[in-house]
Amino acid sequence: MKKHGIILFGHGARDPRWAEPFERLAGKLRASRGEPVSLAFLELMSPNLPSAVASQAAEGCEAITVVPVFFGQGGHVRKDLPEIVEQCRQAHPGVAISCATAVGEDDAVLDAVAEYCLRQVL
Amino acid sequence: MKKHGIILFGHGARDPRWAEPFERLAGKLRASRGEPVSLAFLELMSPNLPSAVASQAAEGCEAITVVPVFFGQGGHVRKDLPEIVEQCRQAHPGVAISCATAVGEDDAVLDAVAEYCLRQVL
Repeated sequence: MKKHGIILFGHGARDPRWAEPFERLAGKLRASRGEPVSLAFLELMSPNLPSAVASQAAEGCEAITVVPVFFGQGGHVRKDLPEIVEQCRQAHPGVAISCATAVGEDDAVLDAVAEYCLRQVL
Repeated sequence: MKKHGIILFGHGARDPRWAEPFERLAGKLRASRGEPVSLAFLELMSPNLPSAVASQAAEGCEAITVVPVFFGQGGHVRKDLPEIVEQCRQAHPGVAISCATAVGEDDAVLDAVAEYCLRQVL
């Protein structure tokens, strides 16, 4: 079976504590599967997406799925991300790089967020 | 029982489609409870938080819980939001305004995001 990496793509922020849930998410995924899981950021944090893709390609991944860890799909996900992914595809023509829809568009994720909100007003 | 509103606080974006999951989330919450649920944004979209709080106060809410719909807790959640909430408290001293932790810090939310990521690589 070919090695298939996951890259969790987030916005990035100045405060390093901002990345904590992304690290926890990566940890959960690593515990669930024996294949590479890494983080990448649009700005303010490193690595950026081209570096993260290069690392997974160097580890031998033949497929990489980029998951945008954003709630909404605005300019970052609809415009910036496809441009960066296209650069990555050109840099690594042997790697099948796909891009998921933003996690916040998933109904089960929204259900979990709704449950969290309801717990705040009990 | 006192009327208790929820305000879902997001960053905001230029692309109106960015707000779709926030609208869906508000819809889920409205379907679950008969009390006010509204959206508010830090920038680029309206209403802002002071306007959303003023609306819920005008509807008779005696308590309002602001839920930051952010993954990470960076400067927006740790610094900007408490300042805006403090302004809102001063403007509406009769309303008990509380602020939840960012939704992305919740373990069940992260579990749902992890499940979504795993479904992308099946």
